[in-house]
Amino acid sequence: MISTISTLQRRDLNHVWHPCSQMKDYEELPPIVIKSGKGIYLYDENGKQYIDAVSSWWVNLFGHSNKRISTALANQAFQLEHAIFANFTHEPAIFLAEKLAEITPDGLTKVFFADNGSSAIEVALKMSFQYHMQKNKPNKKRFLALTDAYHGETLGALSVGGVDLYHAVFQPLLLDTVRAQGPDCFRCPFNKKPDSCNTPCLSFVEEKLKVHHEELTAIIIEPLIQAAAGMKMYPPSYLKNLKELCLQYDVHLIADEVAVGFGRTGTMFACEQAGITPDFMCLSKGLTGGYLPLSVVLTTEKVYAAFYDNYETMKAFLHSHSYTGNPLACRVAYEVLQIFEEEHYIEQIEEKGAFMKELASSVFHHQSYVGEYRQTGMVGAIELVIDKETKEPFPSKDRVGYQIYQIALKKGLLLRPLGNVLYFMPPYVITKEEIRTMIDLTNEAIQQYFDNAFVKGGA
Amino acid sequence: MISTISTLQRRDLNHVWHPCSQMKDYEELPPIVIKSGKGIYLYDENGKQYIDAVSSWWVNLFGHSNKRISTALANQAFQLEHAIFANFTHEPAIFLAEKLAEITPDGLTKVFFADNGSSAIEVALKMSFQYHMQKNKPNKKRFLALTDAYHGETLGALSVGGVDLYHAVFQPLLLDTVRAQGPDCFRCPFNKKPDSCNTPCLSFVEEKLKVHHEELTAIIIEPLIQAAAGMKMYPPSYLKNLKELCLQYDVHLIADEVAVGFGRTGTMFACEQAGITPDFMCLSKGLTGGYLPLSVVLTTEKVYAAFYDNYETMKAFLHSHSYTGNPLACRVAYEVLQIFEEEHYIEQIEEKGAFMKELASSVFHHQSYVGEYRQTGMVGAIELVIDKETKEPFPSKDRVGYQIYQIALKKGLLLRPLGNVLYFMPPYVITKEEIRTMIDLTNEAIQQYFDNAFVKGGA
Ligand SMILES: Cc1ncc(COP(=O)(O)O)c(C=O)c1O
Ligand SMILES: Cc1ncc(COP(=O)(O)O)c(C=O)c1O
Repeated sequence: MISTISTLQRRDLNHVWHPCSQMKDYEELPPIVIKSGKGIYLYDENGKQYIDAVSSWWVNLFGHSNKRISTALANQAFQLEHAIFANFTHEPAIFLAEKLAEITPDGLTKVFFADNGSSAIEVALKMSFQYHMQKNKPNKKRFLALTDAYHGETLGALSVGGVDLYHAVFQPLLLDTVRAQGPDCFRCPFNKKPDSCNTPCLSFVEEKLKVHHEELTAIIIEPLIQAAAGMKMYPPSYLKNLKELCLQYDVHLIADEVAVGFGRTGTMFACEQAGITPDFMCLSKGLTGGYLPLSVVLTTEKVYAAFYDNYETMKAFLHSHSYTGNPLACRVAYEVLQIFEEEHYIEQIEEKGAFMKELASSVFHHQSYVGEYRQTGMVGAIELVIDKETKEPFPSKDRVGYQIYQIALKKGLLLRPLGNVLYFMPPYVITKEEIRTMIDLTNEAIQQYFDNAFVKGGA
Repeated sequence: MISTISTLQRRDLNHVWHPCSQMKDYEELPPIVIKSGKGIYLYDENGKQYIDAVSSWWVNLFGHSNKRISTALANQAFQLEHAIFANFTHEPAIFLAEKLAEITPDGLTKVFFADNGSSAIEVALKMSFQYHMQKNKPNKKRFLALTDAYHGETLGALSVGGVDLYHAVFQPLLLDTVRAQGPDCFRCPFNKKPDSCNTPCLSFVEEKLKVHHEELTAIIIEPLIQAAAGMKMYPPSYLKNLKELCLQYDVHLIADEVAVGFGRTGTMFACEQAGITPDFMCLSKGLTGGYLPLSVVLTTEKVYAAFYDNYETMKAFLHSHSYTGNPLACRVAYEVLQIFEEEHYIEQIEEKGAFMKELASSVFHHQSYVGEYRQTGMVGAIELVIDKETKEPFPSKDRVGYQIYQIALKKGLLLRPLGNVLYFMPPYVITKEEIRTMIDLTNEAIQQYFDNAFVKGGA
């Protein structure tokens, strides 16, 4: 079935190659033309409203076209839109760096800027590597990452990623990363429960460390939630024990909080829940409240000191992007941090998160094809399975998530799934009433899909 | 000598790690705190004015805090700041993509978005590679790049770069790029003149192609100016003949117009002067007039078609960034293209460029340590040498360019050099009077440095 498409849709398809898309899919589901946004809603060219339940790829925090943030951005645009950031600086960057140093785990005092999540990962990988070179550890050239990890798509970031979908074809271009099996609480190989286990699965990492620690510069991890993997959640104790292992084996810990930072997991940063300070923390996405690409890597005085020397020693960290420290993006990010504080969002997340968890658990637990509803902070995930007992997944070729996504779109709900996992990561301005609507519509979409699938003889 | 530093400077140094800097240098030259910008000027916390002769790392086109662009940005911020770009679209992206397809060389019709120059390079490398995989050419896994090339700093982009300063330390993390000696018109190994030669130096590339073409997926090049290398300029005929070679040997051509695009070389895109259509064209920097990080890769229907198939074939190009297609940045970029057209900037560049060339040539040719003043479009470069006859360069440890940079800053001129090369790449709004001031101040700074150097017994 080919939908009729609007002029704007046709114009889009003539020239735009969309990310993370098989463009042929657009023959059936043409791109939806968004004209405006307000709060948790996006509005298309026909005035149809969509609840942005995924915060537009996990970036939006305080709603679309937020008045306070837009005002700050507009004012900055008329004062200083950008200036070179080598040898020059400006208040938006200074205030932002100061605030980030204050609110991130103790010991993270230095802030290096980049433009997107992937670039932040590249910075952290390069810094960790160069640090060890300069500490006379030239064998430390490899990184350790977890299975199902996702850290972005530039070749360095992709090299540490573990989601086959994204990196299989590019294998010949990627670094030879040491891969350790990550935590999998839904299908725990030790048959433990995440809230009471003593993280036996960390032995997979330790085994690799034993063999490879001398050639490892850093371990990179997504704290508490492996997001792109399908919102796989694991307990803080895993992180805490991992940090111990890093110290023991003299390997840096890179915490990729690009997706989980800024309150998503219930605390400002996921690492807080484990009480740890990583050697590097990468932030992006929510950093600008969903407005603009900007990222930072925070690190310690110890790392900074290893690069601080006379020019001739050539120890400087020579990474730069043209728009590093962009005043517009920094100003927006600073406003976001002020809103967080002044409007007590951590408390709001706690309250709304509890409400969402209770409601969603009760709604989805009864569903025949829901293997689990899990939630951390304000990230909730529904994992669809063929069989609740065996937890057998639907084959990816069935595109079950994608089918439900399409049904939900018709109902005015934007719920972009990850394979068989549907998830909620709404902007924090969502109300309890809206949380209820989001859950109800999701439930209807799931039901409708399986009812139809049965009729058609599928599933 | 330690300068006294302001509170803001101290606060900056407490937390900000600046790009492309040995932070210890800031003990002597603390970061200059910019409060505002207007036209070609930046203003610091003491109200001191600086001519931004380098367009803040080559990004600014129409002046700082440009009223028209800032207004467009502000309006967009209150309407739609961002929306997920997979399955969704919006007018700013559609209009921008359409316009880019229209003004770039014939045949470049598809536009893929990313956030910065480096990410655009990564997209082009990955697309070219995957294209050949999907065309059953699995041996095509390597890239060819020129000596002294610069394409950015993420590991893929860095792998094709050839400036030792940036990539030497990271060598173990980089792809094994085939490197061919690039053009060097100032120190031509064939003793030719760029306007009359028949590009004998292209034989360096051809030799590599003969040996490696079966394993090469693409050649990447900075058209007309190897910018970060020190504004090394070469004639359009080189590009034209290179494109021929690419066709002959079945290797893609990636034109990295991140620095030279949008009028810098006198035409909208540098490739125009050679009359060629590359397989991929990467754009960033000037794309948003110096406002925001945004980049695009343009490619052909032929490339697009190789990825267009049923979902199950897994041929999609799965590269994405969270902020792909950001409406704020797209809206700004669209405004930039409208300004270009409506205010006839290509004509202005021609006229101002001619004025600058005549004046600068006459001023700098007499200088004892100026080996050459060269200019393409509105990019002018002064190459400092110890000896005009032998063209012997100053040793990099002397940091001659950096010393002159400091003198120029005192005079209110921002002239960030590349080693021994000082250059002008001003915003196009610069007036002839201001061009004269920029050249005069540069001349004074050079003179002052060498006068002093002689007194101290240096140089
Ligand atoms: C954990 C994590 N790291 C890194 C990235 C990459 O960030 P970006 O898309 O801005 O390049 C993402 C993006 O989804 C992410 O989820
Ligand atoms: C030719 C060229 N390509 C790529 C880049 C990288 O762009 P970005 O700094 O935005 O990552 C640059 C930046 O200076 C450049 O000059």
